[in-house]
Amino acid sequence: MAVYTEVTDEDLETFIASYDVGELLSFKGIAEGVENTNYILHTTKGPFILTLYEKRVAREELPFFLGLMQHLSRQGVPCPLPVANANGEVLGELAGRAAALVTFLEGFWTRKPKADHCAQVGKALAKLHLAGQNFPMHRANALGPGGWRPLLERFQARADAIAPQLATTISDELDQLATLWPKELPSGIIHADLFPDNVFFIGDTLSGLIDFYFACNDYLAYDLAICLNAWCFEKNFQLNLTRSRALFRGYESVRQLSAAERKAMPVLARGAALRFLLTRAYDWLNTPAGAIVKPHDPLDYLRRLRFHRTIATIAGYTGEDA
Amino acid sequence: MAVYTEVTDEDLETFIASYDVGELLSFKGIAEGVENTNYILHTTKGPFILTLYEKRVAREELPFFLGLMQHLSRQGVPCPLPVANANGEVLGELAGRAAALVTFLEGFWTRKPKADHCAQVGKALAKLHLAGQNFPMHRANALGPGGWRPLLERFQARADAIAPQLATTISDELDQLATLWPKELPSGIIHADLFPDNVFFIGDTLSGLIDFYFACNDYLAYDLAICLNAWCFEKNFQLNLTRSRALFRGYESVRQLSAAERKAMPVLARGAALRFLLTRAYDWLNTPAGAIVKPHDPLDYLRRLRFHRTIATIAGYTGEDA
Repeated sequence: MAVYTEVTDEDLETFIASYDVGELLSFKGIAEGVENTNYILHTTKGPFILTLYEKRVAREELPFFLGLMQHLSRQGVPCPLPVANANGEVLGELAGRAAALVTFLEGFWTRKPKADHCAQVGKALAKLHLAGQNFPMHRANALGPGGWRPLLERFQARADAIAPQLATTISDELDQLATLWPKELPSGIIHADLFPDNVFFIGDTLSGLIDFYFACNDYLAYDLAICLNAWCFEKNFQLNLTRSRALFRGYESVRQLSAAERKAMPVLARGAALRFLLTRAYDWLNTPAGAIVKPHDPLDYLRRLRFHRTIATIAGYTGEDA
Repeated sequence: MAVYTEVTDEDLETFIASYDVGELLSFKGIAEGVENTNYILHTTKGPFILTLYEKRVAREELPFFLGLMQHLSRQGVPCPLPVANANGEVLGELAGRAAALVTFLEGFWTRKPKADHCAQVGKALAKLHLAGQNFPMHRANALGPGGWRPLLERFQARADAIAPQLATTISDELDQLATLWPKELPSGIIHADLFPDNVFFIGDTLSGLIDFYFACNDYLAYDLAICLNAWCFEKNFQLNLTRSRALFRGYESVRQLSAAERKAMPVLARGAALRFLLTRAYDWLNTPAGAIVKPHDPLDYLRRLRFHRTIATIAGYTGEDA
């Protein structure tokens, strides 16, 4: 949550001049974005977001992310639209960083999701999945099942500093998921990080989805399992069945889940919980004290994981008759 | 440069509802303001800045600052206008902080001031001084001559860690200024901190002045001496005479300096340099390593101070015949 790279007025005016966005009126660094530096710009043609990509984002992957946002936006998914410069390029350079200008999406994220929010998120996710079907580029999911064991190995020796037996718990779960993980489900573009802070609402109406920097190709239903983890738990880590039912209904009002996807849902939910447990545990152990960005508590996702292990069928999330 | 206080969507919507600013469309914390937390808001009636006052700002002084901005704005000085809520109050409360909503001023500060910028700053400063003449409230300058010796005493014992003999140099200068400081000059409201980052331009035209949280009553010409220090020196600490001449001409095109003010200018310039040397030295010694806000180098102002001690008359700044 910080401005890592300062931009000068002169450099920005030169940069902006190559885009058809009018005259620069103001720019302010915003305290948003963990990985990158973001500025809000006002020009005579409206507001924009300028993103400077810091070192944690691989430059060769930017064409995928920006191309995807262009594709989804043109298909009617409400997301930031990268603006092309006079050369037709969406990726520029500013202050020694790869940089992109995208349209500003009005709206703000909700700190207390209600069932209606979840229903809208489900719908929007399904629309994203459908819109992504004809996107021609491909990106493997670095944080999918194949990446989990290597990630654990990077902090396994220190994992028990977070909670007793954590390394063993995760390792056992990885063994089980290796067996249980579905072999073939409908795949395509997934957002892979559609947490509440990446979904904007105006009043109670969904206005947009942001932050596509984890987007990749994977099982569509796994993306829904991520949302289940992100949107449908109470602060005390209990599932809010009203919200999860609304999420699934919203999703299925746009795209019906197949029998195989429904059957796999408890396992996918375990995998999604494990994926965030792993990255949070890694960040927890590798964030210096006093860092600007405070790490999230990994154990939130250990608790979700334990819950999902008690669920036998999708009915545990939808409340429907099994 | 940070968001010290996080605001939730619910709290902000409740807060906004008491103002006639339309519906909230978006809000983002901005990395601006060393003392306070600032958000940029978009509403259906336009952009605004929301300021949450952190503990370093004395709450009992806020009516002076906000009242002054209202007064100046109504007198045609381009500065943020505090918006009154349904009860006619400009000071509210949000997230446990005193809070104010002000109009958003388009423009951005220039990193490389040129003579024309300085001329416009001089004019705007003089207009501010005239507009402030009939402002009914009063605030003593806590960082005026009476406050310098007490401030030195708070870090005197450690001052030489910044530069050899610094404590003695400052103390000697304080002794001299106590004798030389003018006894009676035209007084009124001064901005007292009109550095480049507090002056906005669009293209090359001045669009506004911000950050009135050091404003107070003091000698008007002292405010001009602050601008001289802030705007007219090269990175190598040499005076840029073209810029300083433009600053004075701009100022005097709106408000003529008196003979006494002209005579006092080199001493006022020394005092202004000393004032920033003192606060920067204090901050330098009292900012924890790894703090979000990096302290400025105090020695920049020791070099300016030494320069001003070589100047006998205002002609040293204006280039005119003495």
